[in-house]
Amino acid sequence: MPEAGIHLSLIGIGSGNPDHVTLQAIKAINRADLVLIPRKGADKADLADLRRDILVNVLTNPATRIADFDLPVRDAGNPDYRAGVDDWHDAIAEVWSGTIAAHLPAGRGRVVLLIWGDPGLYDSSLRIAARLRPAPALEVIPGITAVQALTAAHRIPVNDIGAPFVVTTGRHLRDLGWPPGVDTVVVMLDGDCAFRHIAQEGIHIWWGAYVGMAAETILSGPLFTMAPAIAEARTAARRRHGWIMDIYILRRARA
Amino acid sequence: MPEAGIHLSLIGIGSGNPDHVTLQAIKAINRADLVLIPRKGADKADLADLRRDILVNVLTNPATRIADFDLPVRDAGNPDYRAGVDDWHDAIAEVWSGTIAAHLPAGRGRVVLLIWGDPGLYDSSLRIAARLRPAPALEVIPGITAVQALTAAHRIPVNDIGAPFVVTTGRHLRDLGWPPGVDTVVVMLDGDCAFRHIAQEGIHIWWGAYVGMAAETILSGPLFTMAPAIAEARTAARRRHGWIMDIYILRRARA
Repeated sequence: MPEAGIHLSLIGIGSGNPDHVTLQAIKAINRADLVLIPRKGADKADLADLRRDILVNVLTNPATRIADFDLPVRDAGNPDYRAGVDDWHDAIAEVWSGTIAAHLPAGRGRVVLLIWGDPGLYDSSLRIAARLRPAPALEVIPGITAVQALTAAHRIPVNDIGAPFVVTTGRHLRDLGWPPGVDTVVVMLDGDCAFRHIAQEGIHIWWGAYVGMAAETILSGPLFTMAPAIAEARTAARRRHGWIMDIYILRRARA
Repeated sequence: MPEAGIHLSLIGIGSGNPDHVTLQAIKAINRADLVLIPRKGADKADLADLRRDILVNVLTNPATRIADFDLPVRDAGNPDYRAGVDDWHDAIAEVWSGTIAAHLPAGRGRVVLLIWGDPGLYDSSLRIAARLRPAPALEVIPGITAVQALTAAHRIPVNDIGAPFVVTTGRHLRDLGWPPGVDTVVVMLDGDCAFRHIAQEGIHIWWGAYVGMAAETILSGPLFTMAPAIAEARTAARRRHGWIMDIYILRRARA
């Protein structure tokens, strides 16, 4: 007997390697009545395919149905960025609701969304799920993040011994410079090589694109010498794949 | 034919839930000739058992051997903390080397260490592995961290939308106060409720002990009201289990 109402699991599936999936995720997927999959857009096809690859690998419950949905497009023309994002999340919540209602018309059952990385790190799914009415019972299952795929690829710890670090965005690094109080900075969501906008002396960079995926490319070295090489590698990779997702860690020698 | 020399995999096994283990970790474990397991001490028995639980669950290769070793004890009396840690890491590297040599006397084969959390986050394994001579071929496999188990348990994102956050230690928070430039702070390795030493107005705390484990306990709310309750819960839990590992996120309202 299914429990009352909708149970929604936001499941982190890791960062590109289908084998990042955890046993916890596999069990939750196989408990689901319905898996929601965003239909792939023109670009980032590799990301959409990852979800299908994982389902092919791990889904063994014949009763679990898979439902595609079209992800609404964010209105990048909205001059108020935050309002634009809010509207976009509203629209996604509506599509989730509609797709769930179409497949589970009795309004009860277990629904799963497969989330790139971890639902808790720079991801909107929790904020979108909070818009659903009636509110579903919510479960979060962690997944390997791009930060972890990056440190694993470079075989480095993210932190110096006992030392703090900041996780931030390319925009923050570009606009605000090196964050105060730390010697290590993890930069995510950087569309434009923000490391070019900071003083480069005495800083080491560990960079990676498509970390965890077959196309994984990593580079590391003193920022001063690596910055042009990374910018070039990034442009070439983006041209070749049609999209890029990269991440890096900057560390300066301790004062 | 095994490759030349020793291949060492540092495998993140997650933060207490045996189902945090990834398919990537399972495959690496089953490729191993030798799995090194630290013998459990008097306390933290639950942590030592987790490694065995995972092996029982996932190890299917009959050729893989398991070797126990006694983890050296750190000389907490050394007045130079960093030197004490360095000596300790030297001693652990020696025990690893000796255990590997005893089981793989030809000096080649695949060795696996199962690392709590992720080898890249506040973990010493990479620094210990760097001491091994001859240097092994090294592989790092990421695992779910306590940070992720905490955010999953509370069903929250670690970050505000597009905003940076700091990951730091209890000692840093106590000695240096709220880190500059961020509204979110993740605190790890806090042996003594460092949150009591900062101004508590306008701050929310999400706390967890034994996150990911069956004994998982979480509390959240305004720091001002929750601080005494958390300190009390921490003391009680430590008494009950004989050890404690906890973690928390602090977030202040944006200025």
